[in-house]
Amino acid sequence: MELLTYSLENRGNTPVYMYIYECIKNDILTGRIMPGERLPSKRPLASHLGVAIITIENAYAQLITEGYIQSKEKKGYYVSDDMEMMALHTQGSGGHGADTINNGLNNIGSNDAGERANHISFDRDSFDSNDRVAIDFSVNSIKADSFPFDTWARIMRKSMLDHEAGFTKAPDGRGVEELRKAIAAYLYKSKGITVSAERIIVGPGTEYLHHILIQLIGRSCFVAVENPGYKKVGRIYETNGVRVLHIPVDEKGMIIDRLKDSNVRLVHLSPSHHFPTGTVMPIHRRGRLLKWAKEQGAYIVEDDYDSEFRFEGRPVATLYSMDQSNVIYMNTFTKTLAQSIRIAYMILPEKLYDRYREKLGFYSGTVSGFEQYTLAEFISGGYYERHIRRVRNQYKKCRQEMLDAINESGILEYINVTEDKAGLQLVFEIKPEYEKAAVNLCAKMLEAGVKIVPFSDYCYGLPGRYENSFLLYYSDMGKDMINKAFYLMSNVLKN
Amino acid sequence: MELLTYSLENRGNTPVYMYIYECIKNDILTGRIMPGERLPSKRPLASHLGVAIITIENAYAQLITEGYIQSKEKKGYYVSDDMEMMALHTQGSGGHGADTINNGLNNIGSNDAGERANHISFDRDSFDSNDRVAIDFSVNSIKADSFPFDTWARIMRKSMLDHEAGFTKAPDGRGVEELRKAIAAYLYKSKGITVSAERIIVGPGTEYLHHILIQLIGRSCFVAVENPGYKKVGRIYETNGVRVLHIPVDEKGMIIDRLKDSNVRLVHLSPSHHFPTGTVMPIHRRGRLLKWAKEQGAYIVEDDYDSEFRFEGRPVATLYSMDQSNVIYMNTFTKTLAQSIRIAYMILPEKLYDRYREKLGFYSGTVSGFEQYTLAEFISGGYYERHIRRVRNQYKKCRQEMLDAINESGILEYINVTEDKAGLQLVFEIKPEYEKAAVNLCAKMLEAGVKIVPFSDYCYGLPGRYENSFLLYYSDMGKDMINKAFYLMSNVLKN
Repeated sequence: MELLTYSLENRGNTPVYMYIYECIKNDILTGRIMPGERLPSKRPLASHLGVAIITIENAYAQLITEGYIQSKEKKGYYVSDDMEMMALHTQGSGGHGADTINNGLNNIGSNDAGERANHISFDRDSFDSNDRVAIDFSVNSIKADSFPFDTWARIMRKSMLDHEAGFTKAPDGRGVEELRKAIAAYLYKSKGITVSAERIIVGPGTEYLHHILIQLIGRSCFVAVENPGYKKVGRIYETNGVRVLHIPVDEKGMIIDRLKDSNVRLVHLSPSHHFPTGTVMPIHRRGRLLKWAKEQGAYIVEDDYDSEFRFEGRPVATLYSMDQSNVIYMNTFTKTLAQSIRIAYMILPEKLYDRYREKLGFYSGTVSGFEQYTLAEFISGGYYERHIRRVRNQYKKCRQEMLDAINESGILEYINVTEDKAGLQLVFEIKPEYEKAAVNLCAKMLEAGVKIVPFSDYCYGLPGRYENSFLLYYSDMGKDMINKAFYLMSNVLKN
Repeated sequence: MELLTYSLENRGNTPVYMYIYECIKNDILTGRIMPGERLPSKRPLASHLGVAIITIENAYAQLITEGYIQSKEKKGYYVSDDMEMMALHTQGSGGHGADTINNGLNNIGSNDAGERANHISFDRDSFDSNDRVAIDFSVNSIKADSFPFDTWARIMRKSMLDHEAGFTKAPDGRGVEELRKAIAAYLYKSKGITVSAERIIVGPGTEYLHHILIQLIGRSCFVAVENPGYKKVGRIYETNGVRVLHIPVDEKGMIIDRLKDSNVRLVHLSPSHHFPTGTVMPIHRRGRLLKWAKEQGAYIVEDDYDSEFRFEGRPVATLYSMDQSNVIYMNTFTKTLAQSIRIAYMILPEKLYDRYREKLGFYSGTVSGFEQYTLAEFISGGYYERHIRRVRNQYKKCRQEMLDAINESGILEYINVTEDKAGLQLVFEIKPEYEKAAVNLCAKMLEAGVKIVPFSDYCYGLPGRYENSFLLYYSDMGKDMINKAFYLMSNVLKN
């Protein structure tokens, strides 16, 4: 076929390889390049576009991983004619992927509402200013009254007295020993995880922990993230010069086969409760994932972000408990205590921990000693478990109100609820017979004063696949508000 | 000349280009390669050693920057016959540089005593365990009783009540607005710096702020740091894949000419009070530095780490006040409040700030909201200034005791004090007539139960240059202890 021509000047902040990947994907989805067609070889295409061969290699690698193209040995690259894969996409407009890349990148200082809702809150300010929103389902906030200010303040005051001398020293780069021990004990009690406090690394949020992982893993390999998923993770790696593969997720979680033949050395996922679909990765696939990791010498970041607030389904053992040499367990207190408390942690496998000691042992602590000692005592004294129980009950009540409102509102005529098992968000999709009425649903609802989140906000490309799915954060709503919102939505959908 | 042969297997964790640089430098210093001699061309040397040409280029660039070799157009690379430069080195053993690279890298979890003393504290644990140290001058600690725990706890409790709703949101990635405004007002009042709170970025320590700068500047350029200097800064950049040039410092501070013809895009220095020599960069050289930065489109990180505790000399205007488009002003509260409080900040020039918004605006805050609001009120309410005044007076008293002890001890027969203007450390050098007695002084003092710091700990290479200089952190010593230490030192030196 003739060489593909794309104007690289329009790519904005998108890395060149990503931009080329997007362009080729769009050409495939829109039929400009047909199934079975051969793609140009890497070298002539690179020279044609004036980019390095590695850039084309990276673009092709992403296309292979997502199943758009296939590499045939000694023959070259061909557009996939895999019908199932194509079927996922033919409904879509095709132009989706490239548009979403820069989505919301230019906003700053927004009322950042929650780690998993960050990219939503990017345009929240501009939205709030139009004053029409009466009911906002786009913000993942924790109820203010759930944080035990008094207990926290009392323990902090006590910690200051107990550890006065300690405060003149910078905390250990990994976190203070008392906190790491308290976390180890809590993990054993609550999840059956046995771990030495030595290998726990505390940081001011999971973002920082990813920065540490980048310094441990290096920049010459790929990192794989879930698609759809928590997009910020991929962005952190890309911003730091690490190439990212967005691996599709099916009803069993990340599709492991797509990792094969890749240079992936780190995989980020939430096997116990995928965000935002709620999928739990079944044991069989977990086994295959761990087998792959062992063979490749790759690491898996098990992000257990909402483990405290799952309300249904049997409790799932962590990946970490199945494999302590390839799995990095990661969690945060930000979601369970308060957004304002920036404390997260991860457990490093022994080999990575040795590398950390050797390469990164010189770093100072990154979390206030006051708060570390306070949290240590908060956990050891049993306050944390009590707090979790209380918040769980609050969320359970919220969730029941949400489910009641759904049942009573008559909205189930129009939608199927696809995910409601965790306490903070709900995912639904429009029934096929109402798809037409659902076109531009977000805008129509906004007209009516209700802000909901299109599921595509969590997708990297995948046009059409989740076109009729939406997400609601309802944790600070009452039943009446939710009822009203669904009443308004029914009105939109019935017309 | 014949090709140089070095065994790359012995390089440990040193980057290859650094290792080759060290090897060649040693060969020059020990006379294996003579002044005026031609070095092998890059390509054959690269292929001989089995490394990339860029690796040799980087090694040569470092050697040029430090003045060891010169590039003659169309002729090649020659060992410098600059007499002044050579004179600096001929006293030295020559083997120093390569040995210091991995110094202390393997220790972790030490009682990290102070940002400027970190690499000292690396081996402090093993040292403490030998029980012989009665007087330890190697730890830069702040007196525990200087931190106003009561005031801090009271303000924190009040902040919790005032900002309760705010704590359910993640703090702005740059820091909470109240704190950024309080810092801006303080900078205006105390240093005459006018800055919009918008462009202040708060982070959990200067190390994190350097991580942010790396993401803004990229990894394709060099970063220049002072030599001698605060070695940790260079290490942060190297750990993150940025190449570092160690630029020599003379009695006026960093030698600007060494930056010429380099690909340096970021320079880290402390022009108002160089660590650890205490040099103040005079206005003429400041002008040349800023001119260079403007021409190169480079940025200068002005690290003003000890600006609150300088006791002599006229106050120096900041570089930032001379040039707001190329200078990044950086400072920390860790040194003035408590090591345990991890709050530092920097002011980004407008152009860099725009890049920050665009590329890094998606990051969540990294410092606890509780502490940010507390510090904001602590500054705005005037408590911070009061605290600084009180600590200054404590340090002044300490310093006077130190100077008195020196005068009374008779040690001035043997040493010259070369730096005593800031409240935390003292630098002295042995008088030439006692140099022989000073060989292995640190070890001899250790025998006597006194731990002092060899100045070479702050040098990258530069063998011989500071061989007879030593540093003492005396802030938690009394006059008697200091007197005793100097008595013991006199004994060592008189023999």
